Amino acid sequence: MPIKYSQSDLEQLEQRFRTALINNIHGYKPLTLVGTKSNSGHDNLAVFSSLFHLGANPALIGMVVRPDVSPRHTLTNIRETGNFSLSHVTAAQAKQAHQTSARYPAEVSEFDACGFKRYFAEGYSVPAVEGSPIKIWCSLVQEIPLTQNGTHLVIGAITYLEVDDKVLKADGSLDLTVAQLVACGGLDTYYTGDRLFQLTYAKPDRTPEEK
Amino acid sequence: MPIKYSQSDLEQLEQRFRTALINNIHGYKPLTLVGTKSNSGHDNLAVFSSLFHLGANPALIGMVVRPDVSPRHTLTNIRETGNFSLSHVTAAQAKQAHQTSARYPAEVSEFDACGFKRYFAEGYSVPAVEGSPIKIWCSLVQEIPLTQNGTHLVIGAITYLEVDDKVLKADGSLDLTVAQLVACGGLDTYYTGDRLFQLTYAKPDRTPEEK
Repeated sequence: MPIKYSQSDLEQLEQRFRTALINNIHGYKPLTLVGTKSNSGHDNLAVFSSLFHLGANPALIGMVVRPDVSPRHTLTNIRETGNFSLSHVTAAQAKQAHQTSARYPAEVSEFDACGFKRYFAEGYSVPAVEGSPIKIWCSLVQEIPLTQNGTHLVIGAITYLEVDDKVLKADGSLDLTVAQLVACGGLDTYYTGDRLFQLTYAKPDRTPEEK
Repeated sequence: MPIKYSQSDLEQLEQRFRTALINNIHGYKPLTLVGTKSNSGHDNLAVFSSLFHLGANPALIGMVVRPDVSPRHTLTNIRETGNFSLSHVTAAQAKQAHQTSARYPAEVSEFDACGFKRYFAEGYSVPAVEGSPIKIWCSLVQEIPLTQNGTHLVIGAITYLEVDDKVLKADGSLDLTVAQLVACGGLDTYYTGDRLFQLTYAKPDRTPEEK
């Protein structure tokens, strides 16, 4: 049976219930630790589930940042230095990654507080997370403030990436189950993936087949 | 062993390999069928993996649309009518959903060509997909052209939604495995989810626990 919510039903829902419902309503989300460093040298690590693909050439990513909640240090540092790292989260790292969303004071680095080891790539001062099978370094391209709710859309260009060789397939695609990545539902539920199939390129006159 | 790509390495990759790599690089993505209808009454259905959460109150979603590829009818229709539906894809629907990415002519509706049954909610003329456990109707709030690569960011407000009662939990969160939703990797690989855990709200002075 469907449960139905109109716009005014949604507005009248108890706040925590609505937050959970609307944060869950788009299904599986990627889970990423965003690493930044302030000009004064303090690094910061915050978990995000709002990363999305914007383009392959040039390689661009988008990320939604809410400046009014705990990951605000992330936005401040990105504005200061123009650089950030992305480390995708494995199942073994999921509890620690969740813990980075606690409101630590600015002088505390979540790398230390949550037990993550810093990983430095040659030529990059912003650390990523040791043990993450996919690590990406980005430079800020544009920040778009969204007037509807005060969130900020951060657009970044991929300047460097490292991917575990066991995860990368011959066609350039990745096996996310070999990577042991987690997906996130809402703000607090975590899933691992089971590979269903990879399909051939869709054409109007044929049915897609499993590769 | 990590495989390393600099920005210039990425630029020089063979195009299909780069497309696969960069489309896969952000892990699990939600898979959604976007339904639209033109002013002349033709409906259209296109699969997207770029939907993201923008805010819970008001309930806002974001979606990246590439106007130069097949789902361009989607953007044209959204501009014409200001309305669209979102139907999240189950494992049983994944092959049909993939097939909507074939380049059908404008007069062909992917509902018919790919074997989807239209689902109409009272008061809404844009159909969603029968059998989808999460169906959402949105109105266009803003379209932001991204100058970096010609993509368009569509921001929509959720005006109505229906969710299967078996999927909705008492706290407002959803069980995505009960919903049998698929996640997408890149453009052609599909995954189902296994629930790992749901964690308590993170606070600096305690370790997150499984709920």
